[in-house]
Amino acid sequence: MDLIARLRAGLPGEAILTDPDVTGSYANDMASFCEAGTPAVVVLPRTVEQVQHVMRTATELRVPVVPQGARTGLSGAANASDGCIVLSLVKMDRIIEINPVDRIAVVEPGVVNAVLSRAVNEHGLYYPPDPSSWEQCSIGGNIGTASGGLCCVKYGVTAEYVLGLDVVLADGRLLSCGRRTAKGVAGYDLTRLFVGSEGSLGIVVRAVLALRPEPPQQLALAAEFPSTAAACEAVCEIMARGHAPSLLELMDRTSVRAVNAMAQMGLPDTTEALLLAAFDTPDPAADLAAVGALCTAAGATQVVPAETAAESDLLLQARRLTLTALERVKSATMIDDVCVPRSRLAEMLDGTAAIADKYDLTIGVCAHAGDGNTHPTVCFDAADPDESRRARESFDAIMALGLRLGGTITGEHGVGVLKKEWLARELGPVGLELQRGIKDLFDPLGILNPGKLF
Amino acid sequence: MDLIARLRAGLPGEAILTDPDVTGSYANDMASFCEAGTPAVVVLPRTVEQVQHVMRTATELRVPVVPQGARTGLSGAANASDGCIVLSLVKMDRIIEINPVDRIAVVEPGVVNAVLSRAVNEHGLYYPPDPSSWEQCSIGGNIGTASGGLCCVKYGVTAEYVLGLDVVLADGRLLSCGRRTAKGVAGYDLTRLFVGSEGSLGIVVRAVLALRPEPPQQLALAAEFPSTAAACEAVCEIMARGHAPSLLELMDRTSVRAVNAMAQMGLPDTTEALLLAAFDTPDPAADLAAVGALCTAAGATQVVPAETAAESDLLLQARRLTLTALERVKSATMIDDVCVPRSRLAEMLDGTAAIADKYDLTIGVCAHAGDGNTHPTVCFDAADPDESRRARESFDAIMALGLRLGGTITGEHGVGVLKKEWLARELGPVGLELQRGIKDLFDPLGILNPGKLF
Repeated sequence: MDLIARLRAGLPGEAILTDPDVTGSYANDMASFCEAGTPAVVVLPRTVEQVQHVMRTATELRVPVVPQGARTGLSGAANASDGCIVLSLVKMDRIIEINPVDRIAVVEPGVVNAVLSRAVNEHGLYYPPDPSSWEQCSIGGNIGTASGGLCCVKYGVTAEYVLGLDVVLADGRLLSCGRRTAKGVAGYDLTRLFVGSEGSLGIVVRAVLALRPEPPQQLALAAEFPSTAAACEAVCEIMARGHAPSLLELMDRTSVRAVNAMAQMGLPDTTEALLLAAFDTPDPAADLAAVGALCTAAGATQVVPAETAAESDLLLQARRLTLTALERVKSATMIDDVCVPRSRLAEMLDGTAAIADKYDLTIGVCAHAGDGNTHPTVCFDAADPDESRRARESFDAIMALGLRLGGTITGEHGVGVLKKEWLARELGPVGLELQRGIKDLFDPLGILNPGKLF
Repeated sequence: MDLIARLRAGLPGEAILTDPDVTGSYANDMASFCEAGTPAVVVLPRTVEQVQHVMRTATELRVPVVPQGARTGLSGAANASDGCIVLSLVKMDRIIEINPVDRIAVVEPGVVNAVLSRAVNEHGLYYPPDPSSWEQCSIGGNIGTASGGLCCVKYGVTAEYVLGLDVVLADGRLLSCGRRTAKGVAGYDLTRLFVGSEGSLGIVVRAVLALRPEPPQQLALAAEFPSTAAACEAVCEIMARGHAPSLLELMDRTSVRAVNAMAQMGLPDTTEALLLAAFDTPDPAADLAAVGALCTAAGATQVVPAETAAESDLLLQARRLTLTALERVKSATMIDDVCVPRSRLAEMLDGTAAIADKYDLTIGVCAHAGDGNTHPTVCFDAADPDESRRARESFDAIMALGLRLGGTITGEHGVGVLKKEWLARELGPVGLELQRGIKDLFDPLGILNPGKLF
């Protein structure tokens, strides 16, 4: 094997996996129904030089490279292609620096989000991005997919925390871009171009991340609504009145019931929509009281503020369990990720319910409501071809609805394999041409994560 | 004139200026010592279609186009080149939408920053970016140069408020990129690529901007220090302790004296460094007390909290006058814009003082200290060739110092003509090659603001 022999010239033996039973386990991320090929080899470099060696080898032999983090992605962006090198960054997992004065961390891509979050907490600092998979997902993967989370309504997405990057390019050269300063405008923002690029432009081997001071412990409330539209009205009022909740999440009845069925959380089974709001402000009780009043005015039948941090955590835990709970409703799920202007959220949810009716399917919806970012989750029986077809059609209908409402096909999960036909629809021909041009510029041989995005 | 005739085919007569006395007044922005050519014509379109017509004409005739906003820039990025079309966007100055629920504004590029700021205030909203020139500068120019301001230490720079853009490309096609949603990760972030691109990739004709809730009125304090190093120590302590000042500014003795000389502000003339801190938190007095104590611990000889918003405004007014005041010290100034990690700020200021000594020049420094962003302002006699030479050399020495300290040659003013040799040094050959590749992709004929950046 020429490829393996050449990889061995610059990588230690234990960094190269070739046993098909082992390499096969690296074929997929967590997306459903996305094609995945069979990798030729999996490499697990520990240094920048080793990554450079892999990319030089791949360029020389014209072998596709699929970069991977923790493979918790939901769009197939980390799925292998046939004969590819899977380049797993999980062994590059050092936190190189945490600097409270500059409020930055310098990390390798394999650092797990929760590990970094806890490490910076010890310095009184806060790394906000908190995807649901934060206990497993890696910073490199977060950067590749521009992940979000519950925190975004107040703290924004991963992109806003990436100041600088070291990137190994397709040909093995090392690029340093961005900065470790608070500000900087020297040239085009290449750093931001890599964020969300799903490994299609280069391999992130080091990141300078912005940190924030650790906020006070957040306190949450739960409000029950007789309709999703009423809950959305409350969301709009809360945001229009200038409140800054640290999270603002919505669960529809299907989601609430699924969570209760799995975990006996005692959520109000009969409600049509449960809204969770939290504040990490100096006086969260006062903020919750004001928001509770807005919920009542919008039609909430019950508003229950948590009295302690433990009670708040329990509410958030229920929210975090939603996807797992919905996965138990039927044998399979497809989770969508459509973001609309929050003023259109009610229409998005009503429209999704209409789609569920039309296709005769169960679609549970949880949403980062404050961001207008919904996760309609289609539950279906994968063994039933007709139901599977309807699931895929309803999934597409949800994206079409999002675009009609001025939204995007993906708020935080990315495009990957799952939505590449839809990316072209969202971007239009001019945008698509420029995006392809950027891809060609960074990866003229087309070896970096081929078949993703476009 | 073939060019003029063709422009007339798609532009009303009053949108085309050809009188050399008039067009000559469009040759420069506010940067000192930057080359500027003689425009062939100035056009003042009012619609997207008119901008498209200009760009189609320019492409057809291979005529360079220099886009301009209010020409308040400090790097020569808006300076004309010989025979160019100056494309002034100042007549496209409509605020199209202000939406409190979605917390966005949709604007044309010619809207003046202060006009937008006041308009959104009326809806209880806040557009943070506040360059010193905010009463004159335009949003399009702010986007082109990725401007900062005093607010950045808490609220970040212009880039963080640009969600989506409509851009007329070099060949006249219209690109819509980005979004009006809170989140979105569909494809590469072209929007961010345009921010700070100084009109070299396309003409921004419409922007979707993120807004924030209007914060409480800020309250400030002034602290006097016996050395800039002591003031910088206070800055580091304030930030390391997790405070979130809405501004944190430093004026050195030269700046303080210049402001007093011009405006009799009664600033403490004998102090070596004056630190201004402000908070727009729910309890600014408490935050100021805590920060005042940190200043005292770092060696402040006096700490004076403002008791009223009016007193605070006076302090900030003094800071905002600094550049104008320094311009009166000698016949000419060159204002630098070096940003270093804030942990290196003391070294940056001491090093700048050493450079002033070495070149026997007056260099006044004010700084967005919380961001590590310094504006060393070299004051010199332009009629004295030797002093002018020393001014330019000291200006360069300051950038070299910033790079040695892990900083950037420009925190917020951009590259333009002034720093293009330095951009290459900061980016390195790999970064420069990719940046040039992006330029070629968007502007294959090289007609968009040639001679800037690279």
